[in-house]
Order: sequence, then C-alpha cells, then structure tokens
Amino acid sequence: MLKEITTSQSIVRFDGQHFVEEEDDIAVETALTIVLDGEEFATMVCSPSDLKELVVGFLASEGVIRVYDDIKEMHIDGDRGFAYVDLVRKHCVMRDFHSKRFIGSCCGKGRQFYFQNDVKTAKTVMSKLKITPEQCRRLMGEMQEGSSYFQQTGGVHNAALCTRDGIVVARTDIGRHNALDKLFGYCLIHQIPLKDKLIAFSGRISSEVLLKAAKIGVGIILSKSAPTNLALGLAEELGITAIGFIRGNGFNVYTHQERVLVSGTM
Amino acid sequence: MLKEITTSQSIVRFDGQHFVEEEDDIAVETALTIVLDGEEFATMVCSPSDLKELVVGFLASEGVIRVYDDIKEMHIDGDRGFAYVDLVRKHCVMRDFHSKRFIGSCCGKGRQFYFQNDVKTAKTVMSKLKITPEQCRRLMGEMQEGSSYFQQTGGVHNAALCTRDGIVVARTDIGRHNALDKLFGYCLIHQIPLKDKLIAFSGRISSEVLLKAAKIGVGIILSKSAPTNLALGLAEELGITAIGFIRGNGFNVYTHQERVLVSGTM
Repeated sequence: MLKEITTSQSIVRFDGQHFVEEEDDIAVETALTIVLDGEEFATMVCSPSDLKELVVGFLASEGVIRVYDDIKEMHIDGDRGFAYVDLVRKHCVMRDFHSKRFIGSCCGKGRQFYFQNDVKTAKTVMSKLKITPEQCRRLMGEMQEGSSYFQQTGGVHNAALCTRDGIVVARTDIGRHNALDKLFGYCLIHQIPLKDKLIAFSGRISSEVLLKAAKIGVGIILSKSAPTNLALGLAEELGITAIGFIRGNGFNVYTHQERVLVSGTM
Repeated sequence: MLKEITTSQSIVRFDGQHFVEEEDDIAVETALTIVLDGEEFATMVCSPSDLKELVVGFLASEGVIRVYDDIKEMHIDGDRGFAYVDLVRKHCVMRDFHSKRFIGSCCGKGRQFYFQNDVKTAKTVMSKLKITPEQCRRLMGEMQEGSSYFQQTGGVHNAALCTRDGIVVARTDIGRHNALDKLFGYCLIHQIPLKDKLIAFSGRISSEVLLKAAKIGVGIILSKSAPTNLALGLAEELGITAIGFIRGNGFNVYTHQERVLVSGTM
C-alpha cells in the first residue's frame, strides 16, 4: 500500500552545514472526481489507495446512499482520477441544499448541526460498548506501530476500526476525513456490525470528524490529539465517548464517561 | 486572542491510575456563513478570531474579489456566525464552476490545476527574495515560540507572514487553510507589499496550501512538516521555494533551491 501513497523524489537536504541531494518519499496527493448518474458531483484530493471504499464512504457520509446496495454500478478510473457511480434510484438532486447551512430553532438542540445533510445522516449512537484505560492505550499504540515511520512523519492520517481487543482494519489518507470515509466505505461494503467497534484516529477531533464517527455508528472515538468545543457538543448530544490526548499512561475523557471503566471492573 | 479561540470546559483526566475532574482549555470551532450580495455563498468552520481578514482572504482566494476595494460593504455578525458582503460589482455567478474540475489538455501544464478558479487566481510568483538556512530556522523557531503551549498542543494551526528578519503578523485557526486566508486578508486590507515576504506555516504543504501561498504572492514557504507531490509539482510550476521538515539544524529544500543561500554568501 505504501507504494501507492508515496513516490520517490529527489530533494536537497540541508544537514546543518551542507546541502546534499537525496531521494525522499513524498506523499502522493491526487484528485478524484465523482460522477454521479452522469453528473459531476464532487472532487476531492486524496491518497490514491482504497478508492472504492473512499467513494462509498463519502457518498454515505453525504447522505446520497444509505447502504452499499444503493449503488447499481461503479467504475473507478484511477489513472484519470474519476469515479463513475450509478445509483439504483436516480440521484434526487440534493446538491442544492448540500452545503446549505442548517439553522435550528433559536437555541434548540439542532443548533449544532451546521449542514442539512448532517441532520439527516448523523443519528444518536446507542452502543453499549465499554472500554478500559489499558485498552485505550493499547489500541492507540497498535495504530501507531502499525503505521510506518513515513506515515507518522509524512503527514498522512491514520484511522483504525477496532474492537476492544485489536484493530480490525486501518486506513490512511493525506486528508483526515478521507481516512474516515475509507473506513466507512469498508464497513458498508463488508456489512461490518458496529456495536462492538470503536475508532482510533491520529488527528484532532473536529466537528466533521465527530460527525463521521456518528454516521459510521461507533460509540467511542480515541485520538492522540485534542477535540474542539463544537465536536464535544455534538459528542454529548449524539451519545459518543470522545477520548483525546492519549499519551504515555494518561488521556482525557471529554464526554460520556460511562463507557470508560476503571481497570479490573469489567 | 487566546480568549476568543479557546473555552474552558470541565473534563475527566485519567492520570495513569485515577480519574480526576479538571478544567481544560478547548479550541473553539464555530461556523461562519458568508452571504454575498444577499445570497448564501459558503459556510466554513473556523476559530472565531480575525473574521474580517478571514472573509476577505477567502473571497480573494476563491477569485471573487481581487482587491479589498472590490468590497462595497461588509458586516460581520460574530454571535450568529454570519458575514454579509456586498460587492462593488454584483457577483457574477461563478458558483456554478467554482468546484468544477479543470482538466487541462492531456499532459500539459494546466493538468495540475484541479479547480477552474485556481487557474484564474494562482499566478507564477516572480519574487527574487533569498534566504539563508539560519533565517529559515530562526523564523520557524520564532513562529513556534510566539504560539502558546495551547496552540502547539491543541491542534490549531499557525501561519506567519515574515520578512527575512522576523514575523510581521501571525494568525491562528483550527483550519489550516483559514490561517492562511486570514494572512491573505490581512495583506489585502493593509496593502502589504509582498516582494520581501515569505510564509512560515505549522502544517503540511498540501496542494491547497501551496496554491494559497501563490495567491497571496510569496515566493517562499517554510514548514516544519512534509509536502505532497502535487504541492511540489505546483511549487515547481508557480516558481515557489518549498522548504519542509525544518527540525533541529536541518531542513529539506524541495523546489526552487536558487532562493536558498549558503550562509555568509548574501
């Protein structure tokens, strides 16, 4: 996989005293345009791996499909960077309100959803999965170890779907959201049950990341980084346990602490 | 400024053995909808600081305005998250091709521009500014020191407009591109000459980041992180020196090395 997402390129390294010509691994960034029922729907820049999963996850995240079977046909032209998707039911032009801002009533609960399609697709998560501090640390550690040195230094993001006992599948992308969409696509294509799953993520928990977790349907998200206040408001509302700053032996539980058990009480 | 972009929130910290309730600074993430000549144009999520600069920089980056005087009137309702902008000349509906993918002829030069408005707004940079390794390291160090511990750990991005001798202005945002748009807006509002300027940036150099630098009009971008291959292709083509991985005494020069001088030869 590393071959797909990196390319070797000659660069000039300054080592503190001299300039030296070297070969370096650079992250590949490519454009992928989704053509939906014959019409250009969206263009994203991404790492060119797991494109089928990316397209499926993106369309589900945007509320265009609900299950994998909503897609009649899909053809991905990776070289030219196009994905052609035909739906079972013709796409009812939702584009007009896709990016329209959703303003809930005054200070009502809906206030925190900013886009109309999020209101439709992000549902409250009912998962009863619980986790111990040891499991948190171990899963975050496994995700880090599983990613190569390049992935840790080269600025690509990693997202892993896990059970409490280990990683089920991990995906990588230069775009944070794409890594999560690839996981989402994987879950839909393989009809993965989500009740016993959680997500470990290398990046910050922003509102968009939190909404992706809700759409995928996991009750716990682990991150080594920080959340935003908007993400935490959504996590509270959607019933998701957000755990951040998993570093060394410690971490922060931001929301729904009831899913985090003190060791040995399981 | 820190007050605007963070909020205090009570969290539960696991210190390795116990759960402790604590107050923590959380990054504020808020939605800002730009209403252009009475029509909803775009909604972004951002840190709620320097919103006027953000709106001006974003509109310029999207090719909607060229100079600050293209704006007739602007009113920002920070509490509700709306920016109302009226242009001198009515906005000619460019929305339709805004996100349309631009496909250049076969393998021609235009191939690397993915969006039509980028073709219009990103011009080759003619800056003759040169920099020494010492200056690279010092500017990156100053940017880091200038940002608080929160900004370094809390996942917000910093972008600084610099001369070779120091930072002119630094901006912060939870969104990488927003931090650059705030700088862009600052430059346009204050009509900052750019020939002697460069940008130091805390994040990765993606194609979008590189295009922003080109649109702002600087010839050098410094980053402590890695670039993507698409960004480097654009940097080569647009005449921008991309310097990354500025860590310790070393760094990598990826493109247009002619702007980097060996110390003492200036």
